[in-house]
Amino acid sequence: MQVKASAPGKAILFGEHAVVYGKPAIAMAISKRSCVEVLESSTSNINVNIKDLGIKGCIDFNSGAIISDSPKKGILKYILESIKKVHDGSGIDIGIDVNIPIGGGLGSSAAVTVATIAAVSAYNEIDLKEEEIAKYAHEVELAVQKSASPLDTTISTYGGLIYLETNAEDIVQLDIDYDIPVVIGYTDTRGDTGKLVESVRIRRDVYPDIINPVIDSIELITEEAKQAILENDKKRIGELMNINHGLLDALGVNTKELSSMVYTARNAGACGSKITGAGGGGSIIAYCPGGTGNVISAINETENALNADISKEGVKITTLH
Amino acid sequence: MQVKASAPGKAILFGEHAVVYGKPAIAMAISKRSCVEVLESSTSNINVNIKDLGIKGCIDFNSGAIISDSPKKGILKYILESIKKVHDGSGIDIGIDVNIPIGGGLGSSAAVTVATIAAVSAYNEIDLKEEEIAKYAHEVELAVQKSASPLDTTISTYGGLIYLETNAEDIVQLDIDYDIPVVIGYTDTRGDTGKLVESVRIRRDVYPDIINPVIDSIELITEEAKQAILENDKKRIGELMNINHGLLDALGVNTKELSSMVYTARNAGACGSKITGAGGGGSIIAYCPGGTGNVISAINETENALNADISKEGVKITTLH
Repeated sequence: MQVKASAPGKAILFGEHAVVYGKPAIAMAISKRSCVEVLESSTSNINVNIKDLGIKGCIDFNSGAIISDSPKKGILKYILESIKKVHDGSGIDIGIDVNIPIGGGLGSSAAVTVATIAAVSAYNEIDLKEEEIAKYAHEVELAVQKSASPLDTTISTYGGLIYLETNAEDIVQLDIDYDIPVVIGYTDTRGDTGKLVESVRIRRDVYPDIINPVIDSIELITEEAKQAILENDKKRIGELMNINHGLLDALGVNTKELSSMVYTARNAGACGSKITGAGGGGSIIAYCPGGTGNVISAINETENALNADISKEGVKITTLH
Repeated sequence: MQVKASAPGKAILFGEHAVVYGKPAIAMAISKRSCVEVLESSTSNINVNIKDLGIKGCIDFNSGAIISDSPKKGILKYILESIKKVHDGSGIDIGIDVNIPIGGGLGSSAAVTVATIAAVSAYNEIDLKEEEIAKYAHEVELAVQKSASPLDTTISTYGGLIYLETNAEDIVQLDIDYDIPVVIGYTDTRGDTGKLVESVRIRRDVYPDIINPVIDSIELITEEAKQAILENDKKRIGELMNINHGLLDALGVNTKELSSMVYTARNAGACGSKITGAGGGGSIIAYCPGGTGNVISAINETENALNADISKEGVKITTLH
């Protein structure tokens, strides 16, 4: 038996950091997918080969040991925790292409986790529902990272455009019948999400009267953006992204490279652009209903850009034979 | 008789744009001074030579005509209106060094106006008090620009550090006995203050619930910054500048070049940095209590930087003979 599964990455359109304080957020699955292939091994080992990152490793299912000499072997923890959910320990070869910049706030670990759970469960002929895949994947992220929002694993499982309600009470699919063409710009430097969330908390503690209204404004931006997206009001979507970016800068999570990409995108014709994710390095998102080509070229002059339409398709499983 | 006068430029530390909505602001006179020299002419003309800009012109006092073939002769209107306040029309040669980047939100027109009124009045042995110079200079700016805040001309006349109260009810000198070492970074592109003020007004009209709290937060920043400056709390001054910068970005007056300078300054060790003035091109201000050298070098790699301590001295007149 050989099984393939894939799952999309995500980008936050509105509301990052404010979600920590119970505010809503909007995120979309992007058309960059992590792919996982599982087949029977000629050995009794569980072998993992993350091809596009050049990481090879071997997982001892019983002890939970990860044997790898790669300095970036941390990602193998997600594979270990994923197969613990749906595998019996027999020898398999797992081949992975992440295809999404790692640590850039684009949900690469969630995409790999969701695709791994889907592929390994299908290999074992376990018929998981999407909600079970999403639940397991969130548990995997919790086990590896200690804390994790269900946002990434939910989007990666279901795809599409998602509105995370106030206080994360519910995750609502926004059903739209048009594309949201975006460009993701990303740097080689990575922000530390935990430290960035902590730095915002400190700034809010030191200057509550100044920062709380900023977080409240982000909430109103997200609510207004939800309406603008449902109405496909491109100008308003872009303007709200630009305002949101300034408020993220005020929270202290912007960097020289991120702001350079944000303004490069706007100067190249993006309707709006902002940091996406935690900031402090990482990624920006530019909304380009007028075309993505110029924006991609302009960002690529100094940093890295990828075209990323909205992905309506979430996790996808293909049984090859 | 030969008379020299000089007057400083200014930089806004906190509160630009919010002042339009009656919020307070803090500004300082900077140690870059426009110099004006007046002496009797060998002709019956009023000849003006702005040496560092390469602008020469001749003013017909009676008709108000300005004769000059310089494309940048607009600045001569300030000279015409200034001498109309304190001169009888006899032939004089006026030599000027502006010494402050023009149109960069650094009060160059106010400095030239204040210094011209001071020099020409002293040449005519008219003993003006500072408050009269400030009043005349504001009238000159109003006559030339149609609208003008008294902030620039007041700072240029009195020097020092100034707190413009809510609704501009009063301009209060903040008396401090330590320096505020800043670096000004400026681009060759100029923002159009009128258009920028209008664009903020439109953004506020379209998104009142989002933008009004931003303007209110800038007010609180300015009030807290006043206290931090009086206590010489360097860390707090820097952080408040950084937050203020993000909120200016959210108002839509940032550019790629300005944000690049702002982050270049922080990366080079500035304690805080922000747009100063209207934005959209123009200038940034970086607060550098730890030393200005690195910040100046870093900004000069791509744009222009000048060292600008606080100038406690306002307008200054020297009668040479």
